[in-house]
Amino acid sequence: MKLQENGRLLKIGVVGYGCRAVEQIRLLGKMQDVRILAVCDKYEDRARAAAEAAPGAAWSVDYRDMLRMDEIEAVIIMTDWLTHIPIAIDAMKAGKQVAMEVGGASSIDECWQLVRCAEETGRTCMLLENCCYGEVELAMINMIRRGVFGDIVQCQGAYAHDLRDEIGMGDVNRHYRLDNFLHRNGELYPTHELGPIMRYLKIGNGNRMTSLVSMATCSRGLHQWLKEHRAGTALESAPVNEGDIVTTMIKCANGETILLSHDCTLPRPYSRGGVIRGTKGLWMEDNHSIYIEGASPRDFDDDPSHVWKEPTVEHTWESEKPWLKKYRHPLWAAYEEFGKRGGHGGMDYLVLRAFIESVQNGTRAPIDVYDSAALMAITALSEQSIALGGMPVAVPDFTGGNWIFDDGGKDESIYDLR
Amino acid sequence: MKLQENGRLLKIGVVGYGCRAVEQIRLLGKMQDVRILAVCDKYEDRARAAAEAAPGAAWSVDYRDMLRMDEIEAVIIMTDWLTHIPIAIDAMKAGKQVAMEVGGASSIDECWQLVRCAEETGRTCMLLENCCYGEVELAMINMIRRGVFGDIVQCQGAYAHDLRDEIGMGDVNRHYRLDNFLHRNGELYPTHELGPIMRYLKIGNGNRMTSLVSMATCSRGLHQWLKEHRAGTALESAPVNEGDIVTTMIKCANGETILLSHDCTLPRPYSRGGVIRGTKGLWMEDNHSIYIEGASPRDFDDDPSHVWKEPTVEHTWESEKPWLKKYRHPLWAAYEEFGKRGGHGGMDYLVLRAFIESVQNGTRAPIDVYDSAALMAITALSEQSIALGGMPVAVPDFTGGNWIFDDGGKDESIYDLR
Repeated sequence: MKLQENGRLLKIGVVGYGCRAVEQIRLLGKMQDVRILAVCDKYEDRARAAAEAAPGAAWSVDYRDMLRMDEIEAVIIMTDWLTHIPIAIDAMKAGKQVAMEVGGASSIDECWQLVRCAEETGRTCMLLENCCYGEVELAMINMIRRGVFGDIVQCQGAYAHDLRDEIGMGDVNRHYRLDNFLHRNGELYPTHELGPIMRYLKIGNGNRMTSLVSMATCSRGLHQWLKEHRAGTALESAPVNEGDIVTTMIKCANGETILLSHDCTLPRPYSRGGVIRGTKGLWMEDNHSIYIEGASPRDFDDDPSHVWKEPTVEHTWESEKPWLKKYRHPLWAAYEEFGKRGGHGGMDYLVLRAFIESVQNGTRAPIDVYDSAALMAITALSEQSIALGGMPVAVPDFTGGNWIFDDGGKDESIYDLR
Repeated sequence: MKLQENGRLLKIGVVGYGCRAVEQIRLLGKMQDVRILAVCDKYEDRARAAAEAAPGAAWSVDYRDMLRMDEIEAVIIMTDWLTHIPIAIDAMKAGKQVAMEVGGASSIDECWQLVRCAEETGRTCMLLENCCYGEVELAMINMIRRGVFGDIVQCQGAYAHDLRDEIGMGDVNRHYRLDNFLHRNGELYPTHELGPIMRYLKIGNGNRMTSLVSMATCSRGLHQWLKEHRAGTALESAPVNEGDIVTTMIKCANGETILLSHDCTLPRPYSRGGVIRGTKGLWMEDNHSIYIEGASPRDFDDDPSHVWKEPTVEHTWESEKPWLKKYRHPLWAAYEEFGKRGGHGGMDYLVLRAFIESVQNGTRAPIDVYDSAALMAITALSEQSIALGGMPVAVPDFTGGNWIFDDGGKDESIYDLR
C-alpha cells in the first residue's frame, strides 16, 4: 500500500473561510492532483483572504456563484454548522460532488432531504470526519477487525474540550458556537467520537443505531465563565441553555450500546474519551491503557474446584503503546512512509484524500451520505430526547433497510474502513 | 478527633454467614464495646461455623430466633440480596436496630415498606455502604465541601468488576449472584459508587434524585465464559438476561446528573470508575488524576483581545496523590492514628463503627433509612427502564418532602458525611 497524489486532476470549490478552512485550503493547495477554482465566504474580507490563500481561485460572497461554474466537479463546505446541509443540497442539485466539515443536524427532516437529494442526483455527500483517520482510531479498528477485543459490546466516546474561551469570544471572531450554546441543549458535536465508533460497530453495514436517550446537566460552567471574563458586556449575564455535560446512550440493532459525552464548558484536559469493550478485553483512552484476557496478567486462577478464594493477582492494565505499534493500521503505515502533513496529527489530510480519491475513482465515499445523515441526526435526536425529559427517541434508518447487508470491504479503496 | 471503642456495650445478632460475614464477624468480635449474642444462617453447617467464629453466640438456621432475644439490641444482615429488606423489616418490628449489607431492591414497594416500618417502629435501618468510607472517597468529599471542584455538575461511578469466575461457580458455593444474572437485567449493584456520590451531591439534604434511564448491552461475556468454562454442565448453554454493561443516567433536582455503570461480565481491571466534574475542575479515578483550574497548567491565555489563537499549553492532568494527601479526610487521619483494620483497605471497619456508634449514641444513622431506600431503589427502577426500552422512570421521594432541608452537619457524629 502506497499513498500517492497522482489521480486525475480534480477541480474544486471551497465554501467558508473560517479557522478550519485556513488550514484545509493550505493542505488542498499543495496536492498535486487538486486545483481550487473558487472560494467563497459570506464576509467579503474573508472571501478575499481565501482567494489570496488559493492563488488563481475566483472569489465570491455567494456560494451559488461557484455552483454555476461547470469546471468545478466537487465542493467542500466548511461553513458554520447550520448551513452545511442546505449548501450541500444546493451543490448536489448543481451536479457537484460534496464534502462537508463536521457538525450536527438541526432536524431529522434535513437529514432525509440530504439523503434523498444524493439519491436523486446520484451525487456523493461525505462528512469529513477526520477522527475516523486518527492514528489511534485506525489502530483500534485494526485490532477490532483482527478480533483482539473479541465481540464488541460497548463503545464510548466524548468531545471533551474546554471551549469556554472560544465560545465566550462571541461575535468578535464571527463564531457561531456561542449562539448554539446559548440557545440549544443537546449533543451538539457528536461526530468526532461517533465517526470512528460507527466503523468499529459496522453501523451501516450489518448494524445500525436504533434508539437513543440524552440527559443534560445544569448549565453552570459557561455562565460562570462569562460572568467573570465578560463583565460589562451583554454576555455577562446571558442565559445559557446548553448543559455543561450532555450524555447520550445509543442502542444498536445488534445489542451494543454507545455512550457519548458532549463536554465543552467545564475546565478539563482535552479527550475524545474513547473506550472499547469486548468479550476479550478493553481499551481506555483516558489512561492510555489496554487489558486483553490471556495476554495481560489475570485475576485468580480458574480453579477446577470452583471454590471462591481471594484474588491473588489483580487484572492489570497495560500501556496502549506496544499494542498501538503492533496493530498500526496499514493506511497509517503507508501515510508515515509518504510523510505526515496537515493538522490534528495528520488525520485532516487523510480525510480530505479519502473524499478526493473516491471522487476521482468514482467509488462510494468512505463516509457516505447514509453514514453522514446518521451521524448528524444524533444532534437533533438528542435535543428531542432532552426536551422530552429523557425519553427514548428512534434513530431513523436512512439506508432504506440496506444496513442489513454487510458489504464492507468490497470496495478496494484504502480509505474505506467499513 | 480520635477513634475509640469505648461506647456502651452493644449486644448484637448477625444474620447470614457467607464470605462477607466471615470477614465482618471477625472484625466485630474484636471490638471492645460490641458483643455478638447470636448468629444465623439458613444452612446449618454455616450457622455452626458462624458460632465457632463468634464464641459464646447462640446459633440458629432461623433468624426469627434471634429476634426473640430481648438482650439483642441490633441486628446486622449479611444474607443474599433478595432477603435484606424482608429480614430488616422483621427485625425492626421485633424492636431491633438494623444494619444491612449492600445490594439492590427488587421493587419500589419493598423500599416503601422499609421506610414506613422504620418510621412506625422508630428504629434505624442503615445500609452498610462501606465505600462511603473509602480513603479516596472521603478525601473527595472533603475536597468538594471545601470548594476545590467549584459547583459539582456531574458524578460518575461504576461497579466494574470481572466476576465471571464467581458468578459462574453457580450453586457450588451457594452463591446467589448467578440466579440474579441469569434472570434479571438491570443495575444490580449500584451502591458502592452511588453511596459516596449521594454524599457528594447532598442527596437527602438539599437535593434528590428525580428520574433515571437505564440501557443494557447484549449479554455476551458471561454466556461465552460459561460455554468455555462450564462445558458439560447445565450452565454451558444457560441463557443470560443481564446485559454485560448496564448504563444508568440519573437526573437530580438541582440539575446534576449521575452516571452509573454495572459491569461484571467482561474481562477488565477492577474500578469504581469515579469521576467528579465541577465548575473548577475534575477528578478521574481511572487515570488517578486531577485537574483544577488555576492550580493545574492552563490552556491558551485569556487574551483581552478575544482573538482566538492556537493553544500553546494544553490543560494538563496532575497526579491525584498530592491532592489526596493534602485533603485527607479528618476521619481517615484519625483512623490511621487509631490503626487501620479489616477488609477493603479499612473501610469495612469504619462503616460498621458508623452504625454501632449511631446506635450507642442514639443519633441518626449516617446512612439512614431514606438514604438506604433511595440507593436500593435504583436497582428496581433500572430494571423497569430497561424493560420499557429506555424510558425515563421517576425516582420516588422517600423523605416525604424533607429532602429540601439541608440539615447536614448538625449531627456531631464524626461518621456523618452529610
